[in-house]
Amino acid sequence: MELKDIEKFANDNFNELVKLRRHFHMNPELSFKEVHTPAYIADYLRDLGLDVQEGVGGRGVVGKLIIDENLPTVALRADFDALPIHDQKDVPYRSVVPGVMHACGHDAHTSVIMTAARILSENKNALNGNVVFIFQHAEEVDPGGAIQMIADGCLDGVDAIFGQHVSTSLDIGTIGYKKGTATGMPDDFTVNIKGRGGHASKPDGAIDPLAAAISFCNQMQYAVTRKSSPMEPVVLSITMFNGGHQHNVIPDEVEVGGTIRTFNKETQDVMIKELKKCLEGLVTITGISYDLDYMKGYPPVVNDEQKTDIVIQASDEVSTVNDVQSLEPDLGGEDFSYYLQRVPGTFYYTGVRNASFRADYPHHHGMFDIDEKGLVNALSVMLHSVFIFFEEEASK
Amino acid sequence: MELKDIEKFANDNFNELVKLRRHFHMNPELSFKEVHTPAYIADYLRDLGLDVQEGVGGRGVVGKLIIDENLPTVALRADFDALPIHDQKDVPYRSVVPGVMHACGHDAHTSVIMTAARILSENKNALNGNVVFIFQHAEEVDPGGAIQMIADGCLDGVDAIFGQHVSTSLDIGTIGYKKGTATGMPDDFTVNIKGRGGHASKPDGAIDPLAAAISFCNQMQYAVTRKSSPMEPVVLSITMFNGGHQHNVIPDEVEVGGTIRTFNKETQDVMIKELKKCLEGLVTITGISYDLDYMKGYPPVVNDEQKTDIVIQASDEVSTVNDVQSLEPDLGGEDFSYYLQRVPGTFYYTGVRNASFRADYPHHHGMFDIDEKGLVNALSVMLHSVFIFFEEEASK
Amino acid sequence: MELKDIEKFANDNFNELVKLRRHFHMNPELSFKEVHTPAYIADYLRDLGLDVQEGVGGRGVVGKLIIDENLPTVALRADFDALPIHDQKDVPYRSVVPGVMHACGHDAHTSVIMTAARILSENKNALNGNVVFIFQHAEEVDPGGAIQMIADGCLDGVDAIFGQHVSTSLDIGTIGYKKGTATGMPDDFTVNIKGRGGHASKPDGAIDPLAAAISFCNQMQYAVTRKSSPMEPVVLSITMFNGGHQHNVIPDEVEVGGTIRTFNKETQDVMIKELKKCLEGLVTITGISYDLDYMKGYPPVVNDEQKTDIVIQASDEVSTVNDVQSLEPDLGGEDFSYYLQRVPGTFYYTGVRNASFRADYPHHHGMFDIDEKGLVNALSVMLHSVFIFFEEEASK
Amino acid sequence: MELKDIEKFANDNFNELVKLRRHFHMNPELSFKEVHTPAYIADYLRDLGLDVQEGVGGRGVVGKLIIDENLPTVALRADFDALPIHDQKDVPYRSVVPGVMHACGHDAHTSVIMTAARILSENKNALNGNVVFIFQHAEEVDPGGAIQMIADGCLDGVDAIFGQHVSTSLDIGTIGYKKGTATGMPDDFTVNIKGRGGHASKPDGAIDPLAAAISFCNQMQYAVTRKSSPMEPVVLSITMFNGGHQHNVIPDEVEVGGTIRTFNKETQDVMIKELKKCLEGLVTITGISYDLDYMKGYPPVVNDEQKTDIVIQASDEVSTVNDVQSLEPDLGGEDFSYYLQRVPGTFYYTGVRNASFRADYPHHHGMFDIDEKGLVNALSVMLHSVFIFFEEEASK
Repeated sequence: MELKDIEKFANDNFNELVKLRRHFHMNPELSFKEVHTPAYIADYLRDLGLDVQEGVGGRGVVGKLIIDENLPTVALRADFDALPIHDQKDVPYRSVVPGVMHACGHDAHTSVIMTAARILSENKNALNGNVVFIFQHAEEVDPGGAIQMIADGCLDGVDAIFGQHVSTSLDIGTIGYKKGTATGMPDDFTVNIKGRGGHASKPDGAIDPLAAAISFCNQMQYAVTRKSSPMEPVVLSITMFNGGHQHNVIPDEVEVGGTIRTFNKETQDVMIKELKKCLEGLVTITGISYDLDYMKGYPPVVNDEQKTDIVIQASDEVSTVNDVQSLEPDLGGEDFSYYLQRVPGTFYYTGVRNASFRADYPHHHGMFDIDEKGLVNALSVMLHSVFIFFEEEASK
Repeated sequence: MELKDIEKFANDNFNELVKLRRHFHMNPELSFKEVHTPAYIADYLRDLGLDVQEGVGGRGVVGKLIIDENLPTVALRADFDALPIHDQKDVPYRSVVPGVMHACGHDAHTSVIMTAARILSENKNALNGNVVFIFQHAEEVDPGGAIQMIADGCLDGVDAIFGQHVSTSLDIGTIGYKKGTATGMPDDFTVNIKGRGGHASKPDGAIDPLAAAISFCNQMQYAVTRKSSPMEPVVLSITMFNGGHQHNVIPDEVEVGGTIRTFNKETQDVMIKELKKCLEGLVTITGISYDLDYMKGYPPVVNDEQKTDIVIQASDEVSTVNDVQSLEPDLGGEDFSYYLQRVPGTFYYTGVRNASFRADYPHHHGMFDIDEKGLVNALSVMLHSVFIFFEEEASK
Repeated sequence: MELKDIEKFANDNFNELVKLRRHFHMNPELSFKEVHTPAYIADYLRDLGLDVQEGVGGRGVVGKLIIDENLPTVALRADFDALPIHDQKDVPYRSVVPGVMHACGHDAHTSVIMTAARILSENKNALNGNVVFIFQHAEEVDPGGAIQMIADGCLDGVDAIFGQHVSTSLDIGTIGYKKGTATGMPDDFTVNIKGRGGHASKPDGAIDPLAAAISFCNQMQYAVTRKSSPMEPVVLSITMFNGGHQHNVIPDEVEVGGTIRTFNKETQDVMIKELKKCLEGLVTITGISYDLDYMKGYPPVVNDEQKTDIVIQASDEVSTVNDVQSLEPDLGGEDFSYYLQRVPGTFYYTGVRNASFRADYPHHHGMFDIDEKGLVNALSVMLHSVFIFFEEEASK
Repeated sequence: MELKDIEKFANDNFNELVKLRRHFHMNPELSFKEVHTPAYIADYLRDLGLDVQEGVGGRGVVGKLIIDENLPTVALRADFDALPIHDQKDVPYRSVVPGVMHACGHDAHTSVIMTAARILSENKNALNGNVVFIFQHAEEVDPGGAIQMIADGCLDGVDAIFGQHVSTSLDIGTIGYKKGTATGMPDDFTVNIKGRGGHASKPDGAIDPLAAAISFCNQMQYAVTRKSSPMEPVVLSITMFNGGHQHNVIPDEVEVGGTIRTFNKETQDVMIKELKKCLEGLVTITGISYDLDYMKGYPPVVNDEQKTDIVIQASDEVSTVNDVQSLEPDLGGEDFSYYLQRVPGTFYYTGVRNASFRADYPHHHGMFDIDEKGLVNALSVMLHSVFIFFEEEASK
């Protein structure tokens, strides 16, 4: 196998990619609750003859293909957790677990790196370096699996790392990259707003926590529009609001949660300060009390410039990639950032949008799906990147 | 037994009242899900030798004490369902069912009428008429049990009806009455607000149903303050708001519910119209769609003037009742109204507030409790009313 | 002249009533700024031979028709100030003062009492008592003219007082009365909300007082809907919001004002407390400071039962009055209350609505107008009331 | 005079700069109402012997220093209008016109270009090109004076243009530049919200335009936070809200205005669409009607790269400039953009912040002031730029 053969190998494995992706798609497991998924991956890697570790950092799986310990080592990372979203698609590979779904594409990521492991294992004599295959649990839920797997040694001896994310914001045939800062800081918060319940016909005898929570959610819009700089991107999304179960009962408390996402500490600090001031002010106005749980999220993904150039070069060599785009940063979070704090690497985006397959829903939507031909593109770029990296290292 | 002995009988049954009340308090059952409660009541009434019917109108229980079918017949009604509220009291008789509680006093109502049945059964030779004991399920949840029990014949042959409600708004020793309209129309509504979910970092790619629901709840305040007459009492309480379960996922939909309570059809119509206009406007503004389920509530309780005079006279004769008050109407709903649409009667309020026992929390609160001495007052007034009613009928 | 002739006298003076009313309608003067109006009234009364005082309590006019100081004395009161509203009607008697208008009917009130003075002066031999004609300035603006005129002696020697208000809520031919409490406490408030201005493109460098004022106005709706009892009528109307004069300048401050109207001190206290808490909470949330000017309004009008019976009897005797209604209390304020705190009396309402003349706009609207035939009704009822009062006093 | 002498000339003219700036500061004139300011400038330029045109594009003044028509021509532009802000400073040069103030620094801009005209006129033998001095009226108010002056020929024959703005965001000693897009599109809007007025005690009889305007202002926050991309800067500042003048009168209408500022047409379109949808939805919800006047603002300032390099080089040569910064774009608007659509040029920022003089208030604030030493920096950089431009042109 040579660099020029990669695309053929990738194409030959299309059915394998699809089979694996659909297996995971039908059998999704929630973050920090993955059991069958890592077991399946570990079995697969063992069958390839790799040195396999399970339970890395909790539930992660690492497979190692060591050619020579003196040669450079590259890590390829996939995440494998799913989301608490109900699969609304009418397809044969629909999730069989009610309320749980691979609505972000981690099934695709995992199938790509598993297939990369197969191809590279079967062609290991072509390799001028070692490859570590990192399969990570729990990317969706803070604190994420990455930080735990790193603490458990998954990056030991690794010189560079590559990862990728499928994207329905990019057409099939597109690869997106971003040098430097690529993602924001995705903080999460949960506020328990406590009033004093009572009969719905006598609000003046109660302290209505639901009304206070409405005021909180509404007032926080002004933190975004008036208190943070309009030149600094910030998202405040209130995504959870739960309280009350009887029409004629004002509940004692309600829970409101969401995410605040920023690119820099100054804006993050402004938003945290405004969140607290808003709650304090509502204590005065409404008489509620509250518990705030504010969880700072992953650090930003900062892609290495030279490793990103490798992905650009790799993309240029793949015939089914017809567009290689420099992307704007976005406010999604990704714990790939922790790997990049340790070793240089890059995280790229593979276009899987195709309206003719209805593969054009946003991520985290119950209709989310991908054009599976994108799996081949993701795999081809990944394999090319490995070979180019080894070449560059050899020529140093 | 004579009229003058009633209070003694009531006092002698204090332990029985408390035992029964605490039994039900510890074993609450939700509306339309009552199983053990009606069975317990039916067994008790059968032991008294009454003619007992179970499953009346679904889950109701009726016991009849027939002296002579040519004599007048009075009905005494208690309701026995509980609420989906978690009992927060630290008392020996605390609810043993997590999340379910007698937080409105229906346990007290039932113990009073059961004990009334005991006393009257044991003294039936003193009675100049017949008594029907109506134990009703599901008062808290529309459409309520009353309408079903009436359809099933519970009022057949009944000439008058009395019912009572304990109240922590009234001090122990107080009986409250209201001639004419006493309660409002407690309509319930549930709105399912549907947007299009997505990743929390990309609100512009989603239609955020939670943000739209916030706007709905906020905007509806103006229906109360600007669109309905300030001279007409109205309550809009939004008591339920549920949607979203993941910090980084904008949900597809959220559910908002609550109650609108009014005293007259004109104001009710204004509120319903404004509710619909508000939702329609938000369709334009936000892009959501919605399902509205609007359930018109019980009709107002309209107490008969003469039957209320009986309760006033009865109250005056009870030595532990030191205050007999004419109350303002309130916006609580009560399906006792359906009985009153068929036969004349009245619904009175028994004070059970006593701060020294912490019996001063509002109804529908997890700390709700009563001063159990109020059970004796409620019972004494009820029994006096029966005797006075029979006397009045006899003298016609 | 006898009682039975009154209606004829009133009808004969229709042209006089209309002439006077239209004179004032065309020449309105704002509260506490009345100059020509009191001078015109005083001249008119002097021409009738009355004992006239000007400048009573500032700008009021009092005319006295004294028959015998030993006889009972009745006062008839009219108010004569106008409003800062632009007259939008297209009629010959439209206001000639831009932005000032008799949009509440005080022109009508004044013409009725002036004509009453004319008829009674010309028939003074028919009178069994004395009449004091009180023309009051500044009813619309707190603290009102009444309190000042009383301090200046206008009620000295007066035994009873009658006043009336025209109403486009009542059809022509209707007289409305209300025994006991008839009006609420119309408090006014003005809040100066102070932030720190700046360039509109840099809200984060400013403290936006306009955004804070929006939050204030919005949040105060919850004071009405959640904090005051739904059984107690309350109006919070924010009627003034002024700030900012350049698209690209965030202003330093804005002024918000309005009215809070209640029937009892408890509800009034709740609303004042919530107003202050709301502002304090917004200081915490937004960083603004504020000045609050809260002006408690007139006390409620409490009509004497017996004097109201006189008006009812008077109305029954007027052939063009075909409907005599007991009204609900309303939340309008009226400083007639101060007179009633000193002497018994009543304040009645004369229907002037007539859709065919477009006399069906609400009071305080730029299209407000009246069916002038109502002037005759108001006058007839007023004169009858005087005669009935004297008869009753004579028969004591 | 040579390039190396410029700084000395500039310093020698410090008193002249201050005198002129303070003259304008004390005598501000509003946009499109400038009379004395252009007359004063024109006299000054005529005294220097320039060819002067008045009334250019309405109220602009152009002075020409023509050395040789075959040589290149550079334009230097200053704006001279003031703002409707009340000067709150306690300084001898405080504005003498109540409510009008040079709160943005246009007085400084004008004094710099006037002094540049003086120095260059007095040293015209040193010039290798021609200079056009453009004094523009009405920069603050759309459509601005630039577009009119250009239509009137002020750029005829001009090869390049330079302008500058003082900035209290930059310390004294700093020059800021931005290659490419430097400012946003500052759209203005005014909405007249029309309800139906009435008495403040009867909101249900009126259509309250003020309450609807509150809802509008509040709801529009969500257009920013939910409907536009968080990655695209956008400002929505509601800066004007005026309506209502009497505590007890609900007004017929209120006027709300503000600015929407964006960098690209897509975001601008989203905001305009949401603004209209918000108003339409409120028509449904509240019953108001409205008039919307939406005025698209100046196009973005796009600075020429090479001309910006000239300013960078010029700044490096000025000894009192110790920091030359590349700035981020901001959402301020500037009609200098129209000149740049015709000829290449650049618009730079001169630091005038100095907390020890209290010259640290934001622009458009009533306490706005500058460190006048910045005038020398602005002038020195301007003159150097002229000389470097001529040198570059000569060497082509």
